[in-house]
Amino acid sequence: MITENFIGFERSAQGENTYSAVNPVTQETLPGAFVAATMEEVNLAVNKAHEAWKVYRNTSGAQKATFLRTIAEEIEGLGDTLVNRVMEESGLPEGRVKGERGRTCNQLRMFADLVEEGSWVNAIIDTAQPDRQPIPKADIRNMLQAVGPVVVFTASNFPLAFSTAGGDTASALASGCPVIVKAHESHPGTNGLIAEAILNAARKTKMPDGVFSSLNAIGYQVGTALVQHPQVKSVAFTGSYNGGMALHKLAADRTEPIPVFAEMGSVNPIFVLPGIIKTQSEALANQIAGSVNLGAGQFCTNPGLVVIRQDENTEAFMENLGSAFEKLAVQNMLNQGIYQNYERLKKESLQTAGVTTVADQSNDGENWEAYPAVASASAAEFLMNPNMQQEVFGPFSLVVQCEDEEHFYAVADHLHGQLTASIMGTQEELAGYADLFDTLQTKAGRVIFNGVPTGVEVCHAMQHGGPFPASTDGRFTSVGTGAIKRFARPVAFQDCPDAMLPAALQADNPMNILRLVDGNWVR
Amino acid sequence: MITENFIGFERSAQGENTYSAVNPVTQETLPGAFVAATMEEVNLAVNKAHEAWKVYRNTSGAQKATFLRTIAEEIEGLGDTLVNRVMEESGLPEGRVKGERGRTCNQLRMFADLVEEGSWVNAIIDTAQPDRQPIPKADIRNMLQAVGPVVVFTASNFPLAFSTAGGDTASALASGCPVIVKAHESHPGTNGLIAEAILNAARKTKMPDGVFSSLNAIGYQVGTALVQHPQVKSVAFTGSYNGGMALHKLAADRTEPIPVFAEMGSVNPIFVLPGIIKTQSEALANQIAGSVNLGAGQFCTNPGLVVIRQDENTEAFMENLGSAFEKLAVQNMLNQGIYQNYERLKKESLQTAGVTTVADQSNDGENWEAYPAVASASAAEFLMNPNMQQEVFGPFSLVVQCEDEEHFYAVADHLHGQLTASIMGTQEELAGYADLFDTLQTKAGRVIFNGVPTGVEVCHAMQHGGPFPASTDGRFTSVGTGAIKRFARPVAFQDCPDAMLPAALQADNPMNILRLVDGNWVR
Repeated sequence: MITENFIGFERSAQGENTYSAVNPVTQETLPGAFVAATMEEVNLAVNKAHEAWKVYRNTSGAQKATFLRTIAEEIEGLGDTLVNRVMEESGLPEGRVKGERGRTCNQLRMFADLVEEGSWVNAIIDTAQPDRQPIPKADIRNMLQAVGPVVVFTASNFPLAFSTAGGDTASALASGCPVIVKAHESHPGTNGLIAEAILNAARKTKMPDGVFSSLNAIGYQVGTALVQHPQVKSVAFTGSYNGGMALHKLAADRTEPIPVFAEMGSVNPIFVLPGIIKTQSEALANQIAGSVNLGAGQFCTNPGLVVIRQDENTEAFMENLGSAFEKLAVQNMLNQGIYQNYERLKKESLQTAGVTTVADQSNDGENWEAYPAVASASAAEFLMNPNMQQEVFGPFSLVVQCEDEEHFYAVADHLHGQLTASIMGTQEELAGYADLFDTLQTKAGRVIFNGVPTGVEVCHAMQHGGPFPASTDGRFTSVGTGAIKRFARPVAFQDCPDAMLPAALQADNPMNILRLVDGNWVR
Repeated sequence: MITENFIGFERSAQGENTYSAVNPVTQETLPGAFVAATMEEVNLAVNKAHEAWKVYRNTSGAQKATFLRTIAEEIEGLGDTLVNRVMEESGLPEGRVKGERGRTCNQLRMFADLVEEGSWVNAIIDTAQPDRQPIPKADIRNMLQAVGPVVVFTASNFPLAFSTAGGDTASALASGCPVIVKAHESHPGTNGLIAEAILNAARKTKMPDGVFSSLNAIGYQVGTALVQHPQVKSVAFTGSYNGGMALHKLAADRTEPIPVFAEMGSVNPIFVLPGIIKTQSEALANQIAGSVNLGAGQFCTNPGLVVIRQDENTEAFMENLGSAFEKLAVQNMLNQGIYQNYERLKKESLQTAGVTTVADQSNDGENWEAYPAVASASAAEFLMNPNMQQEVFGPFSLVVQCEDEEHFYAVADHLHGQLTASIMGTQEELAGYADLFDTLQTKAGRVIFNGVPTGVEVCHAMQHGGPFPASTDGRFTSVGTGAIKRFARPVAFQDCPDAMLPAALQADNPMNILRLVDGNWVR
């Protein structure tokens, strides 16, 4: 059991505060007294990261690719030791854990491919025109470079794919930025295993000491110190609105403000059009209920809002939805805090004036289990009560019933920023809702047709991050290759001797990357 | 004389506060009582912009290009009326004003070309794999879309190229965002002429009412209200550190934080290597002095810091620099505030312990003229006193003399973020300073070889914006085609019917733009 912090390659346990993980299924304390990092250890880790950055930023794409691929191999090499610990700390079933491990390793390899190929640096070259009148034009070349040490806050709901070696770490390391991980207190054992895998890979591929560190923490002190450290240049976070906004405020109030990429979740509305409710009522109800309950509703893209037009098919649809929710399997939640929050927020929602319970599996147990529920409210009530847009993290959804077309559009217009918005309709009726589609484009990072929002594809075109409050900065994504752009900034070179230029910008294009040369994209 | 505000197409002068411009050369009040906008007018302008955005964001690249080109034509059509008013309000000479007008129109046409061609939207397509195991892959398509209304604060030092129709406005309009301009109180007449030109172009090209508004202001009230308005989604600013940081704080403290792209200037260090000082001492001194005094030193890229190695050629170089500064022409500054600040900060710098005056043209007049000065300090003093990195806006520069190689690198390492950093050296010696070059890449947005930082080329590869405190967000540029990226965010479309997709993402690529399709860049 690795219970220490990692300050670069060194294990360190200077502190006196220890804590243990809890198995959310058995509620038993798991082996391992994890030692929370001290302020001195925070400083050491950041200083090492800063020094490592000076070397690591110039590491070639091929070298970084080897590093990232070796991390994936090391993680796979942990075998059942890792799978078992994740299951113990998260309560997630084996299939999910293995699937998430696959995604984690695929992400690392995707970024390896991206930086090995090299065009991601967005190389732009405007060649000199020494004879231009009235003044000569200089040679200007531009490429993305790593901004510096990145702090990654690991997520409760993705102990692998959005934690220690998850998408934030993979994209930051790919960009050339060292990473300091603030381990999640729910899965410190998982963190230790993965951190060691990353550092083994760093040693094997001769990366500089400090390219990765991992700090244990309970409470806010370590995270606060990390975000406030002058040598930290960027922060990535996946979690609650309150957590994300606290970090945003810390970062914005620094002497040198830095960006916080906080993905804070949303209610991911699904607009269901009348035609498809008429023809596929039961299948739709089952599909939506299944998406709401996936992973006990503990996904950022969980659909917490369903918007429908009231008509003669509404009653049947609501009945189908109620039946679907009543049949949903009850699953364990990730930890006690998430379970208690879900119970509290679900109760608040169901007791809100104007909200009618459609189905609510009653909770009679002592376990940290998520009992799914679905409720209903009129559009008029929804438009008056901003709390109805609040995310209930867990298997809960609110159906907003619109008495007419006007309310349907008003609900869309009234939405806060969302990670996703979905439209479900028959092929015939969709074209009639172009205005709804247009509005949803202004509200969400991803607009989905005839699909549920859960299941985020890791690919080039993915956008996971929407207008505030879904994210602190909707101009960036935390999933897919675009995530690397968060941690790089353009640097221009004017009249630089060719031999001194980074390879990506040299005249003969030794990396054979796609570049914009005098306005034309060429290799 | 246009003294009203423009709320979209309507002129409006509800307020009671008026002000006039002052000719900084004659110190005479110029004709025109400009009516500062009221809070109601602020709200009207933003509401109109928000409504206009819903239409304008979907305007085609060709339509936006026509709009931008028509703005350029309208500005050119103002002829000497514009040139004369700019000269009166800024004190800038005719050649500079006409040159800046040319740059302004070129920028508008550059963005017109960019959006007409269309590839800037960064279209990414990952096609469906319905047979993929274990789960099918959806079709995901992604492109940049306009974020919403943008507030542009116009700059004192570029009454045309970074003001009402300057780079910020051009790039925001190109991206599909309506613009609300906060006019600079130094050149309200210029603003009125340009605002009307923009609105004439909007009418002629049938752009929606509200795509552009212009508000007069004295003091901070109008600017504050604009940045705090919930429907404003982004802010662009060029000016002082204090001004930029005030806006950053307002924007970060909103319920919905928004980005502020503040370009706040810097000291733009020039590192002069020993070999070139030995061989080109006088020419270098003249080149640097000329750059320092260009436009009375009122450029963001003004070189306020020169770093040299002490050796047997230092004394001669300092003498050459002193002579060059003594010969510099004295020029009028843009307004009384800038003049007074320059006098104050120059005096403070020259009186700082450890600073020796090398040349200072004494000011015996009553005019708002900038008397150039150059001073000197040891690296040891520079490293101890952070105030020596403070920008003195005007024709002032501090030479930092380094007793050895170690101090030379220490000065580079000690620098705050900069818009630019320059290295001057013979071709033979440059290669020996690869480490210096590497450090400067981490400090600046643009690294220049054997050139002065003034004269910012408007092109694809330009980076104008550096690490904090040069800019609030060094990941973006305010000059060049890259500036458009500030005002757009990626939106992903999942399984969207082809006919409903934006043209940029449709299967047959009707715009013939460059797209990343299944990992390959193709047209």
